[in-house]
Amino acid sequence: MLSSSPFHGLSAFPITPADKDGRVDTNILAQLLERLCEAKVDSIGLLGSTGIYAYLTRNERRRATEAAVECVRGRVPLIVGVGALRTDEAQHLARDAEAAGADALLMAPVSYTPLTQDEAYKHYRAVTEASDLPLCIYNNPGTTHFNFTLDLLVRLSYLPTIRAVKMPLPSDGVFASEIATLRERTGLAIGYSGDWGMADAMLAGADAFYSVLGGTIPGPVLAMVRAAQAGNADEVRTIDAMLAPLWDTFKAFGSLRVMYLLVELIGIGILAPPRPILPLEAKSREKVVAAIEPLLASG
Amino acid sequence: MLSSSPFHGLSAFPITPADKDGRVDTNILAQLLERLCEAKVDSIGLLGSTGIYAYLTRNERRRATEAAVECVRGRVPLIVGVGALRTDEAQHLARDAEAAGADALLMAPVSYTPLTQDEAYKHYRAVTEASDLPLCIYNNPGTTHFNFTLDLLVRLSYLPTIRAVKMPLPSDGVFASEIATLRERTGLAIGYSGDWGMADAMLAGADAFYSVLGGTIPGPVLAMVRAAQAGNADEVRTIDAMLAPLWDTFKAFGSLRVMYLLVELIGIGILAPPRPILPLEAKSREKVVAAIEPLLASG
Repeated sequence: MLSSSPFHGLSAFPITPADKDGRVDTNILAQLLERLCEAKVDSIGLLGSTGIYAYLTRNERRRATEAAVECVRGRVPLIVGVGALRTDEAQHLARDAEAAGADALLMAPVSYTPLTQDEAYKHYRAVTEASDLPLCIYNNPGTTHFNFTLDLLVRLSYLPTIRAVKMPLPSDGVFASEIATLRERTGLAIGYSGDWGMADAMLAGADAFYSVLGGTIPGPVLAMVRAAQAGNADEVRTIDAMLAPLWDTFKAFGSLRVMYLLVELIGIGILAPPRPILPLEAKSREKVVAAIEPLLASG
Repeated sequence: MLSSSPFHGLSAFPITPADKDGRVDTNILAQLLERLCEAKVDSIGLLGSTGIYAYLTRNERRRATEAAVECVRGRVPLIVGVGALRTDEAQHLARDAEAAGADALLMAPVSYTPLTQDEAYKHYRAVTEASDLPLCIYNNPGTTHFNFTLDLLVRLSYLPTIRAVKMPLPSDGVFASEIATLRERTGLAIGYSGDWGMADAMLAGADAFYSVLGGTIPGPVLAMVRAAQAGNADEVRTIDAMLAPLWDTFKAFGSLRVMYLLVELIGIGILAPPRPILPLEAKSREKVVAAIEPLLASG
């Protein structure tokens, strides 16, 4: 019943193509987004971690959002990342995204000085006061190093525009009890990220999966999510097994670095992540190529 | 013999006063710096973590540096923090600091996407190529979540302008062996931060201590460092014991939040950290006031 929400099904997170000075290439971005619209992903996650939001200025983030809205034209809900170190900056970004025509917001509690639970709460509250767009809490301790308590998630769920949470994979690998608890206590749409956990998360009944691979090569992950939604566990496992070598490269090299190579391998162009992040070296590239070849060959 | 280097003795890290929009108040900053010059600290660490560098724009960081150079007038070496997520931004900041008249640089490998050792190396190398100022590696996993291997520190020590490292307190509390190893392998000036470890670090022979309290109330920590330099362990322990209740509040509330209250208590003004960081609440304030009263009373 909630499947038309931007926080259900497969949310695809593309890279944001940019030059070495951090200027976004809106033409290449449109090419990436067009592929996602044609594949009929359930939502697009623009300017997520994979979309290097943390490395782009407010102005470039606005340019990227405006270009995305123009390209997508309402075909797929557009979720825009508005995380920032400063609360006022996150508010500006939320207003910019809404003004540009985004459908929803995604925000991580980015921090330098480690935040208290109350500081994170008030940071989110301030952003929900700046924009009426539905917001997904981006719980990503691997990049933010902030840990949400269940109590904080419950408290945040009472803010009227907060509708969803994007969780990290559970450390014990057990999804069902976590999903049940979060659903009961928060009423939020429950999604996960960390592509190698997609099969387990969707089979356990997660509402959404926020996928890095889906942002560049949506076919196989969309097939996996649809199989999970249809209750076809065998097909989910088959696709996941096919992707396992690629998941291994995500874990070994970081999925962001791998995506830049995949964008090259599918013929979009040779792009580089923002320095200090470096492109993969020859040996790592070989491993990714070996992992991806069967997928590209199978279409 | 190296005591005139900016990376020896007590380095004092003040807050950077700024309004709610992140505009630096250069008048209040000058008041804070004047106190440090009068106290004769060995160096000033402008725009460190306590100086909220991560929350200020390039323009405001330049304004703060220019105001500091003007106020300090060469009386005390001025170390300026130039950390940034992007390598090009860190290079811009290093050039800005040098142009403004800073004496040295301090840089943490700030990251969003976790960095590899090689990415951090090339990030530092790029910044050393942008400015000839001596640079201190800011090894602060509590805020950056980047862990330097010993091999990386050794490799960085070969870059000609890298002269010092600011280490976190050793997890096992044993300084002497770490200092000996780092000194032998890197030849860098070895300093520490985390004020509650100052007594142990200086008694173990660290070259420098990078102090948060010293940036606002330099008297007692300068006395402690001088006592350690004179080999007077009893006096070091006496001062450290007097400061222990304050160290407890640093650990409980984060030293940054405590400093904003201390700046108020010493009569400089009522300032707030950048949102999302919040001022201390009443109960926490009481604990800090109780811990600091004996110090303020004793001058």
